[in-house]
Amino acid sequence: MTQPADLAAYRALLSDLPAPDVAALAEATERNSQLTKPPGALGRLEDLAIWYAGWRGNARPSIETPQVIVFAGNHGVAARGVSAFPPEVTVQMVANFEAGGAAINQLATCFGARMDVHALRLDEPTADFTTAPAMSEAAVVEALNTGWAAVDVASDLLVVGEMGIGNTTPAAAISAALCGGTAAHWVGRGTGVDDTGLSLKVQVVDDGLARHASALGDPFEVLRCLGGRELAAMTGAILRARLLRIPVILDGFICTAAASVLEFAQKGALDHCIAGHVSAEAAHGQLLYAIGKEPVLALGLRLGEGSGGALAIGVLKGAVACHSGMSTFAEAGVSEG
Amino acid sequence: MTQPADLAAYRALLSDLPAPDVAALAEATERNSQLTKPPGALGRLEDLAIWYAGWRGNARPSIETPQVIVFAGNHGVAARGVSAFPPEVTVQMVANFEAGGAAINQLATCFGARMDVHALRLDEPTADFTTAPAMSEAAVVEALNTGWAAVDVASDLLVVGEMGIGNTTPAAAISAALCGGTAAHWVGRGTGVDDTGLSLKVQVVDDGLARHASALGDPFEVLRCLGGRELAAMTGAILRARLLRIPVILDGFICTAAASVLEFAQKGALDHCIAGHVSAEAAHGQLLYAIGKEPVLALGLRLGEGSGGALAIGVLKGAVACHSGMSTFAEAGVSEG
Repeated sequence: MTQPADLAAYRALLSDLPAPDVAALAEATERNSQLTKPPGALGRLEDLAIWYAGWRGNARPSIETPQVIVFAGNHGVAARGVSAFPPEVTVQMVANFEAGGAAINQLATCFGARMDVHALRLDEPTADFTTAPAMSEAAVVEALNTGWAAVDVASDLLVVGEMGIGNTTPAAAISAALCGGTAAHWVGRGTGVDDTGLSLKVQVVDDGLARHASALGDPFEVLRCLGGRELAAMTGAILRARLLRIPVILDGFICTAAASVLEFAQKGALDHCIAGHVSAEAAHGQLLYAIGKEPVLALGLRLGEGSGGALAIGVLKGAVACHSGMSTFAEAGVSEG
Repeated sequence: MTQPADLAAYRALLSDLPAPDVAALAEATERNSQLTKPPGALGRLEDLAIWYAGWRGNARPSIETPQVIVFAGNHGVAARGVSAFPPEVTVQMVANFEAGGAAINQLATCFGARMDVHALRLDEPTADFTTAPAMSEAAVVEALNTGWAAVDVASDLLVVGEMGIGNTTPAAAISAALCGGTAAHWVGRGTGVDDTGLSLKVQVVDDGLARHASALGDPFEVLRCLGGRELAAMTGAILRARLLRIPVILDGFICTAAASVLEFAQKGALDHCIAGHVSAEAAHGQLLYAIGKEPVLALGLRLGEGSGGALAIGVLKGAVACHSGMSTFAEAGVSEG
């Protein structure tokens, strides 16, 4: 599969997305009904296992090669004071990821995932979207393609995460542009801005929405005008995973905003994705609701990096292990109710 | 530590329970504040890691030897038709556990836990508690001691689960006796009884509460009169874990009812326990609320066996891995906000 050359090529891909394997779905559903447990007693684990089986085209799958990819980018709007942390923390945290010292490193190791880090032109922040589009078409396509190429075709599960000081601001702007609602509805404290910072974020998002109003009918233009390199890379990786039928666990608000570009461009484009968790950033729950995703975990995380998605790998592994490893009533000689 | 010889000896133990290590708690709290993340950004994972560190007496702990124990028992009330499954399923499921075919086997393996199964006199169901105490003092002490002895002193985390056709009925009776409220408030569909079965369960619990009204002021008498062997074994194991400072993840309604005997006998007796999940059986959430436990997971499970507790091992492992494995701001050269 060659990388799309421009946004038109990305848009075109969305009209012909692969679906889950109908036979595997039916076979997995039948198998689930025969396992040694009361019907429905594993709750959401049953749905997760059947969903995973469908995308993998295997009624009795296992999760062996999960991949976590962290994308990092810098943002022109960070200079506007929308974050509690200075912009140089992006590159410092990339070094921390590479040295194995961040939360996501521990979680990837804990759940047996390979982890890759892609820093996207950290020395070239995107433009401040209140004054210009965040990215040119060439820049957004480059970032989409970085995400596209980062997906290991041999992986059987994908978590994408991000690092980018200031990036709850583009996530809020994208959410407002896609879903509607005021900037205040989508802006939160991110890593912890004070009341002044919060007011400033609302103003920055309002200004961005006004500046690019004429472009906001097209989700890929929303991504280009209001997004960032690491967001576009996540969008590209999630789309590539769909084409490869690799199931995806979404992380937090920024990851979900990047993913939502696909869903608003083509309803159902995120059917291969589940929401790993709901963040403490209130806008995340709102955005998940807008795209119809119920989070697996709700533990008050608001870190990004893919941390909430990686934590949910454990739950999905447990679900798939039960589905594929349990005996049936007949095999175990257990009486059915 | 010798096994208690009678209920009086069990009661006596509760007045002198070990507390978490204050120095380890303080050191873990301080370490948490220095890790490379915004303050509080790992949400509940931070609280879980500090809690675990306190009980293990180690500010930078790891989870290496978790143990899952499944206790099985049979119930006189099962003959009253309170379950969707026939009583012979208890012994059939014990064989399934021993053969590795049940959900809990897959989850224990998935999260690196040792698993033990203890079947408690399955050919001698407890008495129907509507006509007599479920157990004699000798029988309940024997079951408590089975749980006590089942705990591996070398384990660093414990999940206790159960199998016992009909055992949501004793769990409902114990909950009503400890917390108050009508039988209808605590009775649910268990593995899936129909409306007739549900009405019958309510009547059976009401009859049991009336029959033993004079004994219900003492939580251990509640366990003896209304409980079951596998419930008492869980009570004994959870108490032993406290004495050994082994943290416990509670499973579902039946496990939590067995644990609650300790909390109602001595407030704080379950401080070494977290609630792994909240079950689809509505009474479980009510009982967790009554003992002040917020569940880690809410995935609609209602299987028992320790399944929800085992699934939460993954979350706790992730929490502890972050806490103990992450770099501090100083170590990583990352600027603080």
